[in-house]
Amino acid sequence: MSSAVSPLAPKNVPSMPAIPGVRLATAAAGIRYTGRTDVLLALFDPGTTAAGVFTRSKCPSAPVEWCRAQLKGAKPRALVVNSGNANAFTGKSGRAACKFTADIAAIAAGCKPQDVFLASTGVIGEPLDASAFDGVMESMVSSAQATPWLDAAKAIMTTDTFPKVATASTRIGKTTVTINGIAKGAGMIAPDMATMLAFVFTDAAITTAALQTLLRDGVENTFNAVTVDGDTSTSDTLMAFATGAASAHGAPRIARAADPRLKEFRAAFNAVLANLSEQVARDGEGARKLVEVLVEGAVSKSSARRIARSIANSPLVKTAFAGEDANWGRVVMAVGKAGEPADRDRLSIWFGGIRVAHKGARDPSYDEAAVSAVMARPEITLKVNLGLGRGADRILTCDLTKEYVAINGDYRS
Amino acid sequence: MSSAVSPLAPKNVPSMPAIPGVRLATAAAGIRYTGRTDVLLALFDPGTTAAGVFTRSKCPSAPVEWCRAQLKGAKPRALVVNSGNANAFTGKSGRAACKFTADIAAIAAGCKPQDVFLASTGVIGEPLDASAFDGVMESMVSSAQATPWLDAAKAIMTTDTFPKVATASTRIGKTTVTINGIAKGAGMIAPDMATMLAFVFTDAAITTAALQTLLRDGVENTFNAVTVDGDTSTSDTLMAFATGAASAHGAPRIARAADPRLKEFRAAFNAVLANLSEQVARDGEGARKLVEVLVEGAVSKSSARRIARSIANSPLVKTAFAGEDANWGRVVMAVGKAGEPADRDRLSIWFGGIRVAHKGARDPSYDEAAVSAVMARPEITLKVNLGLGRGADRILTCDLTKEYVAINGDYRS
Repeated sequence: MSSAVSPLAPKNVPSMPAIPGVRLATAAAGIRYTGRTDVLLALFDPGTTAAGVFTRSKCPSAPVEWCRAQLKGAKPRALVVNSGNANAFTGKSGRAACKFTADIAAIAAGCKPQDVFLASTGVIGEPLDASAFDGVMESMVSSAQATPWLDAAKAIMTTDTFPKVATASTRIGKTTVTINGIAKGAGMIAPDMATMLAFVFTDAAITTAALQTLLRDGVENTFNAVTVDGDTSTSDTLMAFATGAASAHGAPRIARAADPRLKEFRAAFNAVLANLSEQVARDGEGARKLVEVLVEGAVSKSSARRIARSIANSPLVKTAFAGEDANWGRVVMAVGKAGEPADRDRLSIWFGGIRVAHKGARDPSYDEAAVSAVMARPEITLKVNLGLGRGADRILTCDLTKEYVAINGDYRS
Repeated sequence: MSSAVSPLAPKNVPSMPAIPGVRLATAAAGIRYTGRTDVLLALFDPGTTAAGVFTRSKCPSAPVEWCRAQLKGAKPRALVVNSGNANAFTGKSGRAACKFTADIAAIAAGCKPQDVFLASTGVIGEPLDASAFDGVMESMVSSAQATPWLDAAKAIMTTDTFPKVATASTRIGKTTVTINGIAKGAGMIAPDMATMLAFVFTDAAITTAALQTLLRDGVENTFNAVTVDGDTSTSDTLMAFATGAASAHGAPRIARAADPRLKEFRAAFNAVLANLSEQVARDGEGARKLVEVLVEGAVSKSSARRIARSIANSPLVKTAFAGEDANWGRVVMAVGKAGEPADRDRLSIWFGGIRVAHKGARDPSYDEAAVSAVMARPEITLKVNLGLGRGADRILTCDLTKEYVAINGDYRS
């Protein structure tokens, strides 16, 4: 497995401020890896609200089922995340591992087990030995701090080559509030509700219902618009926690997602989700190119989305990007197989702003050298105009390289 | 691009007999390749019937549109197939290239242009210079012979590493008839009506309508049950031609696909389709493993098909096979993302007959060494039982290797 950092990694890692009401700790429990942390504990002050969106897989992991069950009526006090084992397809022992983890976290944190949220990422189908958490939970509670966000992001990495963090400062009313997020990728990424694991935290005061709506809306053009390999994880989890600590210096308590006072906050919240989800695409397994697929002129936004997804998931399109080949023929193929309205004779295609095909044939002014220069870039926009209507959408993806095969041919062994 | 023959190639190539009423010729027209043939001409005696199934791509190639238009009412006399250029996404010039090719073939063969069928395979989006056929058509007509089937299969290869032929002898009534087929793969293979290019020929006497029904039924569990990369071609074409020459020695003329006298023929016809489509999977780009995905216990056959396809198209499952890793967790993931009814706690999974997972968890008697031995084989059956109903289906696929990426990252350049 390659351990080199993705060439698409963000150049600058932001300084992550504290979120009043949130404390973090990490530990090395030895779940699967040696010489690195693999458990994250986040502790929340009383009054925190939570929202979550999860995989639509028919075979979800045990922690996904746990979180779904606890979301209604929970008074969130703790989040435990481990890497190295996804606790998926682990049957009764998987459910028992969830219960055991929540029990020991509740004892250590002084709350009820049902107020503990859980997430796991790593290999699927292997039993998770939750007793490994027993030796580290109490010391994590006593050592939890306000600012180790980068450590938190590192503890949840699997094949990720860099930790993913994002932060934004915004206002609700006249009060400044902060939003922090962490995420991990990097394969089995075709989120249908959310990606592998991502967590967003704020000190804003937002009710559970409003936070859930905000999250459900925000995910649509961020995490749900990213694909690495078209494989939807059993463990996709995106959760948001709002501590409400900003109420102490005047932030109003927001009870409806449509509240106009949320306008700035919503934009900042969505920007954090977009930032994190783009980082997931930048760290797609083996990725050497970040590819933005824009589809315009479709009959509807949902049609544009399906066509963009068909292009972004096509192995032949993705290998063409890896080969720096502006192979518009494969783009046509991917448009054609999407099953959506399309008319070859109205189709135009651009790579990096250069039109290579127009109205069903190669652009007469096609310049191989100019296109080759575009294809050599690390970040490329592929635009398709269907010429049928006003529907448009966008999917972020990455190329398919030999390294993807190497990483995934060697992963478990 | 690797030119080594796939290790999954059939060990024996059958001796291909003549089909009375069919003559074949090949030529090197220099469409794209040098030092090899790239045009196939098949000539049919008067009275031949034809049937075809084609890609469901919304952006089909010009020859696909040509064949669809000619199938009704044609009196098939010739088939011209070229490799090197798919004549797809070529707009008006593509339609003109079809017309020109049919015109010169009709003149050379002494028939009408509308009785000429066309197919092209190769790069998409580049104009096809059909004038290249002009220099070879007449000599092909004069040199056509009854038995160069292997040469015919070679002339239509693109990234194929071996020519694909199949033959069967069967009876209609008391008369022996023969069925020959040729096909090419090897990437952009996820046929939805037929695969890239395949042609089947028989001397049986079967009406157009009956032949069409036979073909449409036969494709369902053969070509439509194969996938290499999940990418559906713009050019998928499967055609069958029945010369009726066997009538001369007593074969009855069959007007209905349901005619009971077709029983043996149907089985032989489907066996030829199955043989050819299996060869396509065996020659999937970069393939080192032939993988049969069996899904049982689904709520219906169509549900089993969708789950089998989700497994067979998953990059993570395919790379696991390349890595000889019995990674049932990824199989669970692919079952879960299919969107079909599934219950993790009833799911069982076998690799090569060894049960590795049972009722939602790892099989208690799991033996890593035994499973590793199975995974080292070139041909592996993956069986999934959903435990829900009696629906079952089967998809053939291959592994995803670094060579697939190499072939497709370098193809056009």
